[in-house]
Amino acid sequence: MTVEDIVLQMAKAAKKAAAEVACASTAKKNAALTAIADKISSHAPYIQSQNVLDLESAKKNGLSDAMIDRLTVGDDTIASMANGLREVVGLQDPVGSSDGTWVRPNGLEVSRVRIPLGVIGIVYESRPNVTIDAAGLCLKSGNAVILRGGSEAIHSNLALAKSISEALTETSMPQNAVQIVPVTDRKAITVLLGREEEIDLIIPRGGEGLIRFVVENSKIPVLKHYKGVCHVYVDLAADMKMAEEICFNAKVQRPGVCNAMETLLVHRKAAPVFLPDMAARYTAAGVEIRGCEETCRILPMAVKASEDDWHEEYLDLIVSVKVVEDINSAMAHIARYSSQHTEAIVTSDYMNAERFLKEIDSSVVLVNASTRFNDGGQLGLGAEMGISTSKLHAFGPMGLKELTTTKFVVRGHGQIRS
Amino acid sequence: MTVEDIVLQMAKAAKKAAAEVACASTAKKNAALTAIADKISSHAPYIQSQNVLDLESAKKNGLSDAMIDRLTVGDDTIASMANGLREVVGLQDPVGSSDGTWVRPNGLEVSRVRIPLGVIGIVYESRPNVTIDAAGLCLKSGNAVILRGGSEAIHSNLALAKSISEALTETSMPQNAVQIVPVTDRKAITVLLGREEEIDLIIPRGGEGLIRFVVENSKIPVLKHYKGVCHVYVDLAADMKMAEEICFNAKVQRPGVCNAMETLLVHRKAAPVFLPDMAARYTAAGVEIRGCEETCRILPMAVKASEDDWHEEYLDLIVSVKVVEDINSAMAHIARYSSQHTEAIVTSDYMNAERFLKEIDSSVVLVNASTRFNDGGQLGLGAEMGISTSKLHAFGPMGLKELTTTKFVVRGHGQIRS
Repeated sequence: MTVEDIVLQMAKAAKKAAAEVACASTAKKNAALTAIADKISSHAPYIQSQNVLDLESAKKNGLSDAMIDRLTVGDDTIASMANGLREVVGLQDPVGSSDGTWVRPNGLEVSRVRIPLGVIGIVYESRPNVTIDAAGLCLKSGNAVILRGGSEAIHSNLALAKSISEALTETSMPQNAVQIVPVTDRKAITVLLGREEEIDLIIPRGGEGLIRFVVENSKIPVLKHYKGVCHVYVDLAADMKMAEEICFNAKVQRPGVCNAMETLLVHRKAAPVFLPDMAARYTAAGVEIRGCEETCRILPMAVKASEDDWHEEYLDLIVSVKVVEDINSAMAHIARYSSQHTEAIVTSDYMNAERFLKEIDSSVVLVNASTRFNDGGQLGLGAEMGISTSKLHAFGPMGLKELTTTKFVVRGHGQIRS
Repeated sequence: MTVEDIVLQMAKAAKKAAAEVACASTAKKNAALTAIADKISSHAPYIQSQNVLDLESAKKNGLSDAMIDRLTVGDDTIASMANGLREVVGLQDPVGSSDGTWVRPNGLEVSRVRIPLGVIGIVYESRPNVTIDAAGLCLKSGNAVILRGGSEAIHSNLALAKSISEALTETSMPQNAVQIVPVTDRKAITVLLGREEEIDLIIPRGGEGLIRFVVENSKIPVLKHYKGVCHVYVDLAADMKMAEEICFNAKVQRPGVCNAMETLLVHRKAAPVFLPDMAARYTAAGVEIRGCEETCRILPMAVKASEDDWHEEYLDLIVSVKVVEDINSAMAHIARYSSQHTEAIVTSDYMNAERFLKEIDSSVVLVNASTRFNDGGQLGLGAEMGISTSKLHAFGPMGLKELTTTKFVVRGHGQIRS
């Protein structure tokens, strides 16, 4: 079979399975998730032996240590995948719940009822745990899923697919509810992105290159985020100790993720008090500071920031720092450079706090808290499928609810339009 | 200026205006809508004089009577546009309302707050009333809008733009909150569809050709529906008189719209009782019947339906009729041919009713009511921007709420992640 034939057959099979998964009870879906968790644990030796094949190729192909680290399925990875599934079992099933029911003057009873999207395609790189995390969330929300992982993880992913497949069979769920594209040919992605008749949504997970490729080639709606250039603005009225803790946490606690702070904005009158202590802590933690002119005047260790720095998602122990006139200049800087991901203000001023929350156009806006809270688990949605920075359908972390939509259910007793 | 320059400048101006409209109070937005309604009424003679220019070109270019009818701005059109705006004034403003607030164990208070989408682009044909309807809904939901109507309506649309512009000025709303593309060059559409940096959503309104063109050329998310091939299934357990009223209403009351029924499915055992009376009424109303073999056996006036008929959106006094074995075959037919727009069942059987509502994958599913109720006004959403038949973001009629999204607003007092 050609790559086209393989992907087309998978898409058609997924659409058929989707109709069945959509009507599966929560108990049945939970049983399947639990069975997958059990299989992964009991098949750990096999999964890890297949993972070794991927790791050997990766070393041969000279992949970076960071990539090899992400590719490795250790005992902790197995445990975390299985635990992740059990957590999803515990989450509320959105399917069938209603956003409200109302009665029209003519007696028609109208409800908006949550339904699955149908078939979701996930295109991702490296981490084999995405295979399990994504499968769990898609299944629980009543969707069928087609997973297309990176070629570097193909043996690991197919080994995981075996566990999933056995679990689905044992719990009488349709085999094709979860499918993993078995070919590494990149053409499979292009074919997948063209199957708008069967696939309802594409979610890319990976680097900006992969995401741009998916957006440009997809005929299917895509939920994505390119990058997180997150800002914290320290206002004049901030509790300076609190500001320091938040800015330290936002930058240093886990610098390699999208909700880490990249740019720190400081009110001109707060800067001389706030920046020296803050910078000392950053320096002690190995953070490089790239500052505006004013910042460099205050901080001898700062290097001059270029225009590019304000656009940059460092994902590293680097922070850009800018001294601003007031909240207006802070908000203007954010409007210009933000990626609409996460922005925070530290302030004790009520008017400034409320204005920031209202006017900043980002998926998560915070007062007096770290940007690191832009996360489905931290915000109380449960596990997440990623964070959307475009506004259609979902804006911010995507939990189970964001993998569903609503239809209108109308109950009548003979109503017609006049 | 080139077409590119004109559209680019409009897009940038819209983005700037959007930030201001997003923060405008409901009272201010309502004042603007009321002022537009007043201006349209007082400027009616001017608007109609400009409309005459379009009508003269239309006649010279040999446009069909139906198109000329849609293009005509009569006194009733003026009144209906003004009334439409006043109705939107009465609708609840979705902006700023919250889908819920909850407190995390660490004390963070999290809300999902409704915000406007930003800039909406509308690409449409013929009817100048879309200019006013769309402007009203976009403004009320806090969005800026760029309208690109058909070249055949350019004088009418620019005359309406003048009323809008005066009203915005008088109510201190940003001028560029509503802009109408002043050039008729089709290239303007292509340029508009490429401005993903400024425009958040494109809504095409018009024939399938226009919609396909927009979907294929847009880098911006599109909300659309291609067609409405709506079904009514008359079950064995139906009240036959009720079924007749519903099927007559669904086909005949307004055959030229997307929520009119195109295909009637009848249970085999109900067919000999139901179809003759139904067909007599259809025939008396001038409805042509295209039937399956079994239908043609029962109804002498029916002509044989081809495979194409089951796919067809007639938008006319034609109905395709198929006799089916039972609800399973009815649902299988719908799954194969439906455009996921609107499907109804007429039945007194509880299990069949609930199963139909649950399993049919369409934006509106009804029991014992006419398909003609798939309409924002009829379902209680107020005025609508059209009906979406794709599942992302909106599925079914799109009211004010569907022109917004939510962001997460987080209030803390120094929380950091550990």
